[in-house]
Amino acid sequence: MKAAVFRDGDIVVGDIPEPKPAAGQVLVKTLACGICGSDLHAARHAPNMVAMSKRVPGRVAMDLSRDIVFGHEFCCEVLDYGPGTERRLKPGARAVSMPVMPLSAETRTTIGYSNDFPGGYAERMVLAAPLLLEVPNGLSSDHAALTEPLAVGIHAVEKAALAKDDVPLVIGCGPVGLAVIVGLRLKGVHPIIAADFSPKRRELAARMGADIVIDPAKETPYGKLPIGRRAVIFECVGVPGLLQQVFEAAPRDARIVVAGVCMEPDRIEPFFGIVKELSLQFVLGYTPEEFARCLRLLADGEVDAAALISGKVGIAGVKGAFAELANPERHTKILVEPWR
Amino acid sequence: MKAAVFRDGDIVVGDIPEPKPAAGQVLVKTLACGICGSDLHAARHAPNMVAMSKRVPGRVAMDLSRDIVFGHEFCCEVLDYGPGTERRLKPGARAVSMPVMPLSAETRTTIGYSNDFPGGYAERMVLAAPLLLEVPNGLSSDHAALTEPLAVGIHAVEKAALAKDDVPLVIGCGPVGLAVIVGLRLKGVHPIIAADFSPKRRELAARMGADIVIDPAKETPYGKLPIGRRAVIFECVGVPGLLQQVFEAAPRDARIVVAGVCMEPDRIEPFFGIVKELSLQFVLGYTPEEFARCLRLLADGEVDAAALISGKVGIAGVKGAFAELANPERHTKILVEPWR
Repeated sequence: MKAAVFRDGDIVVGDIPEPKPAAGQVLVKTLACGICGSDLHAARHAPNMVAMSKRVPGRVAMDLSRDIVFGHEFCCEVLDYGPGTERRLKPGARAVSMPVMPLSAETRTTIGYSNDFPGGYAERMVLAAPLLLEVPNGLSSDHAALTEPLAVGIHAVEKAALAKDDVPLVIGCGPVGLAVIVGLRLKGVHPIIAADFSPKRRELAARMGADIVIDPAKETPYGKLPIGRRAVIFECVGVPGLLQQVFEAAPRDARIVVAGVCMEPDRIEPFFGIVKELSLQFVLGYTPEEFARCLRLLADGEVDAAALISGKVGIAGVKGAFAELANPERHTKILVEPWR
Repeated sequence: MKAAVFRDGDIVVGDIPEPKPAAGQVLVKTLACGICGSDLHAARHAPNMVAMSKRVPGRVAMDLSRDIVFGHEFCCEVLDYGPGTERRLKPGARAVSMPVMPLSAETRTTIGYSNDFPGGYAERMVLAAPLLLEVPNGLSSDHAALTEPLAVGIHAVEKAALAKDDVPLVIGCGPVGLAVIVGLRLKGVHPIIAADFSPKRRELAARMGADIVIDPAKETPYGKLPIGRRAVIFECVGVPGLLQQVFEAAPRDARIVVAGVCMEPDRIEPFFGIVKELSLQFVLGYTPEEFARCLRLLADGEVDAAALISGKVGIAGVKGAFAELANPERHTKILVEPWR
């Protein structure tokens, strides 16, 4: 089958073996799959990511000498099941799933960051059958594909453990920051303060529910934090140096939720954390409940999904889309449609 | 009066102007004052500390071109009050105090890190009269001087917000780590795991209440953390690289309480925090309630204070004591007795 393959550090159009579902697995056709910032990070920092993964016990590291097909934000159509597998959803049903494949009682791999399980930049995938969630009638496949990135933001908001009267500040309004804003709006906290250098992203931040939207080139967003209420700062950028910026600018007792995925070593001055007694919560992924809730939120029209999708490409367009996504004015979320 | 003065980057015996209490202030005689690791840090990293302080709004930075007298862990004797000041404790009464001097409604300075308020390495000090806490009869001045460092540990344990079933691991059993162990023992959490390279400090850790004491040169203390219970790791060392070590070794969902005061820039790999969803709480100081509680704990014999005091010096011995404290086998807490 055809796929956009990560091979020798580059994204190429390739022919890869047809995946075959084993017991407990389901074969699906990819209908739409979002390109995630983590995929761009992975393409750029692959050797470093692999080296670090090997240092985390229980984590399955990718083998960069073999093909990898990215893509973990997908909506798909059920085709067939592995032997002895409960055929819970009928062939033809549309579904989403957490991009997780259990390998044993202790280990699992992430679909889209695996040598053995191609992700959604391929025509077909093999998924874990029990994880499929049927897309409710009426929700388009494009919008359903946003379940995963939305869940990342919802999870970050849950891990923030906001207290009444906390004031959130979202640094960076890319897909993660925007999903965090949606989560904050649904929590009913106000004001939601958001900052991004890009006018387009500031417009989207307001549309998703931010009350105060700041261009950090013109003024510091930290100046908008009301005195006497605890600040909860969502770091949604994930580049070296950003955390130290937050350390320096954060008010006393602030809570920092690190949702940006910085894949490189970073430099901090602990002094600022110490004298202000800052707290940090690193976050990743979501729970199955959060994932399922996000599909319902999209189906219920609680999220302006259309505003977030800025383009669509076929397999041949993936490489170009990776480059395009560097421009925040033009793009938020690009969907891959491998069937094109 | 005589004092051990921090001057031109060195500790020297000096004659400095007699302090005069203003309204709301009290003149005291220093009876005993502990040498804190922060004083060693400050002496070593003074220019960096000043440069960083200037970058924190509302923080009063020291002027290194002028004299500074360190010492913020003191027990003292009331001598006289400033004009128009309530004479709450009689002259001759012994007292401890948080080392804080309010300068205005918004600003305050730390006694012992100030050009204007000499700390406890001087014969006499001026303190904020309302902050004095009388030492209960029967508690020696030496032991009362441990109120402050004990409060640092008690505060760290409070900020850890331990849940039932959390398992604490204390990395580094210097005075801060030992005070944390006392706090954990008083909380009733078990097992308390503690690690230090020094046999003497491991012995003290056990004496203060650690249940499992590990020599990290022989085995990893992280291996003692029971599976299925959240780890709360107290970083009580405060040198560059330590935080990254904890990031790499910590189990998933661990909470890290940063009680070590690292005054230099540090390097972390956020990847480890992200994939394990670690949380961090930086801590500093204590509340007035925690401080008062620690004086009572010492008076009630809840802490083996004698075990923590490893030496006493006069003003002329302060410089040598700074050097001596590098040896964890010989020293835990050295008290300065400026009246000697």
